[in-house]
Amino acid sequence: MIIDPQKALADIRMRVQSDLTEFLAAQTRYLGEIGSELIPVAEAMNSYLLDGGKRLRPLFAYAGYLASGGSDDDAVVQAVASLELLQACALIHDDLMDASDTRRGKPSMHRHFESIHRNDELSGSAENYGQSAAILLGDLALVWSDQMFHSSGITPSALLRSLSVHDEMRVELMAGQFLDIHEQALATQSVARSLKIARYKSGKYTIERPLHFGAALATEDSHLRESMFGILSDFGLPLGEAFQLRDDLLGVFGDPSTTGKPAGDDLREGKRTVLMAMTHDRADAHQEAVIATHFGDADLDLAGVEAIRTIIADTGAQAHVEELIEKLTMTAMDSLNREEIDSNAHALLSELANVAIRRSI
Amino acid sequence: MIIDPQKALADIRMRVQSDLTEFLAAQTRYLGEIGSELIPVAEAMNSYLLDGGKRLRPLFAYAGYLASGGSDDDAVVQAVASLELLQACALIHDDLMDASDTRRGKPSMHRHFESIHRNDELSGSAENYGQSAAILLGDLALVWSDQMFHSSGITPSALLRSLSVHDEMRVELMAGQFLDIHEQALATQSVARSLKIARYKSGKYTIERPLHFGAALATEDSHLRESMFGILSDFGLPLGEAFQLRDDLLGVFGDPSTTGKPAGDDLREGKRTVLMAMTHDRADAHQEAVIATHFGDADLDLAGVEAIRTIIADTGAQAHVEELIEKLTMTAMDSLNREEIDSNAHALLSELANVAIRRSI
Repeated sequence: MIIDPQKALADIRMRVQSDLTEFLAAQTRYLGEIGSELIPVAEAMNSYLLDGGKRLRPLFAYAGYLASGGSDDDAVVQAVASLELLQACALIHDDLMDASDTRRGKPSMHRHFESIHRNDELSGSAENYGQSAAILLGDLALVWSDQMFHSSGITPSALLRSLSVHDEMRVELMAGQFLDIHEQALATQSVARSLKIARYKSGKYTIERPLHFGAALATEDSHLRESMFGILSDFGLPLGEAFQLRDDLLGVFGDPSTTGKPAGDDLREGKRTVLMAMTHDRADAHQEAVIATHFGDADLDLAGVEAIRTIIADTGAQAHVEELIEKLTMTAMDSLNREEIDSNAHALLSELANVAIRRSI
Repeated sequence: MIIDPQKALADIRMRVQSDLTEFLAAQTRYLGEIGSELIPVAEAMNSYLLDGGKRLRPLFAYAGYLASGGSDDDAVVQAVASLELLQACALIHDDLMDASDTRRGKPSMHRHFESIHRNDELSGSAENYGQSAAILLGDLALVWSDQMFHSSGITPSALLRSLSVHDEMRVELMAGQFLDIHEQALATQSVARSLKIARYKSGKYTIERPLHFGAALATEDSHLRESMFGILSDFGLPLGEAFQLRDDLLGVFGDPSTTGKPAGDDLREGKRTVLMAMTHDRADAHQEAVIATHFGDADLDLAGVEAIRTIIADTGAQAHVEELIEKLTMTAMDSLNREEIDSNAHALLSELANVAIRRSI
C-alpha cells in the first residue's frame, strides 16, 4: 500500500496529542491526590504540552520505527510521544538559563510561576519562586517522559532494547546543552565549535537519536538494527545540522507571530550560533564595531535588530547558511536512495525532512 | 548464617562507592570524547559523588532487596548505587533553589561553576554561568542515574518489574520538592502541611520507595512482592518522617564541622520545617516577635541564631520533635517483629534505622 506521507504524519501527530492528553490527565489526578497545591503544576504542564509544538521528535522516532520494519502500533506511538515530555524538560530549563520571557507566544515556565506568585500574593521573592518552579517542572517532565515511555505497553523486549539508545540520547542532550552555555561564556566565536554544538543539541538529539530509538523499538534482529542505525544516521545527522541552522536563521529573521518569540531574540540574548560565527569571520572593522555595540544588548530595539540583520545579510553569512542548509538537506535526502529504505519510508522521511527544514517556527 | 549488620552495611557501602567510581570513570571518558570543555563537568560530578554521602538510599534499597529474599548480587548493588545519582540531582537543584553556598563543607555546584567562570576569566555573568551549569549537571545526574540502573546487569525481568516503582519514587520526589518550595511562599506555617512535605520528601523518597525498589528487584512472585511492599511501608514511612525531623533539628542545632553547612543555616534561609511550625504554635507574643525579626535573615549572625535556638528549646518544640522522632522510630522498629522479616533482615534494617536517625549529619 502506498501511503500519503502528509496524511500519515497528521495521523501520527493526532495520536501523539491524544496520548499526551491522556497521560497528563492521569498524572493530574495523581498529583491532585497528593495535594491541591500541585494543581497549578499539572495545569501548567498541560498547557505547555498540549497547546503547541511540532511533535518533531515523536514523528522522527515513529518514522524510524516504520522504516525499520515496525508495523503500526498504538503502544509504540505512546512510547515515542514521551519524547515530547523530554523536550519540555529541555525547553523549560533552557528558557530559565536564557532568561527568556516567552515560549510559543506565552510566558515561559519561570515567568508563569512568577505571575502565580504575584497574583496569589505569596510571600518571598516572586522571581525565586518562578525559578524554583521551573527547575522542578523541568525535572518532573523528565521523569514523566520516562514514566510515559515505560508504561506505554510496548513489548518487554522492545522496552529492554530501546533503553540504552534512549539513555544515550539524553546524555548527549545534556552534554550539548552544557557545550552551548559554555560557548556563550568564551571570549571568541568559532564556526567549528558552533557546528559541534549544533550536532549534539540538534543533529543527534532532535533527529538521529529519535530515529535510532524508533529503529530499536522496531526489530529484535540486532544485525538489522545496527544496519538501520547507520542508514538513519546518514540521513539524520546532516538533516539535524540543517535543522539547527534553520533555527539560527529564525532566531534572527523569524516572524514573531509564527516563532512565538520576540523579533531578533537571539541577537538580544547574544546567542553564539553558527550564523553569528560566520558573520564575525566575514565582518569588516566597521561592521564588527556595530555588532559589538548591539549584540547581546538585552534592551536592543528593532532598529538595532535591523542593523545587525543587515550586516548578517551583507557579509553573505545569511546566504552561506542557507546554502549550507540546502547542501546538508540534499545529502540527507540522497542517503534515502538505497534498497533498505522502501518507498513508503522514503516518502515519510522526505516529507518529515521538509517539515523540519522548510519551517517558519 | 547470622550476619554482623554493621559489617554488612560497611561492605555494601564500599561496593556502592566502587560502582560509582567505575561508572563515573566510564562517563568521564565518554564526555571527554565529545569535547574537552566537558572535563570540568565530569570532574565536578566525580568530586560531588565520591567525596561524601552516607549512601542511605542504596543501603535501604539493598536491605529491602535482602529482606525480600534476594541473594547477594553485584548487579543489584550497581542498580541501587544509581540512587546516589538521583540524590545528586535533587541536592544540586535544591542548593540552587535555596541559594545555598555549601554542600558537605564544599562549595555547592552553582558556586563551584561560578568560581570556574571567575578563575578562567570567562565572559558574561559568573552567577548565571554557575546557575546554568547547576541546572544541567542536575539533569545529567538524573539521566546518569537511569543509565547506571539500566546497565547494571540485573536480569531483564528484575529491570522490568522495578521500573514502575523507580518512576513513582521520582515523581513523588519532585512533587515533594514542589510542595516544599510552595510552603516557603505561604503566609502561614502549619504543622500538618510540613508533616506532609516530610512524608513525600523523605518518608517516601528516602526510605519507603528505596525499600520497595529493592523488593521489586528481589522477587518474581508478585504476591510476595505486594506483601513485602506493605511490610516495608510499615517500617519505612514512620522512619522516613523521623529522618526528616532529625534533619530539621540538624538544620538548626547541627555542628557545622559535621553537617558541612553553616550553623543554623535553616534559620538564615527561613526554612519552614515541622520544627519551626511547632515553635510558632507554642511561641508567646514576645518570642514570636524575636522570630519575626531574625528568621529568614540571610545575614543572621551567631547571636541571632542562638536567640532563635533558645526559643525553639524554651517553647518545648525541640523536645517535642525529639519525642516524635523516638515514637516514630519505635513504631518503625516494632513493625519489624513479624515472621516475614527473618533475623538477618531484622538486624540489618534496625542498624540502618540507627544510622538514619542517630546521625549527626
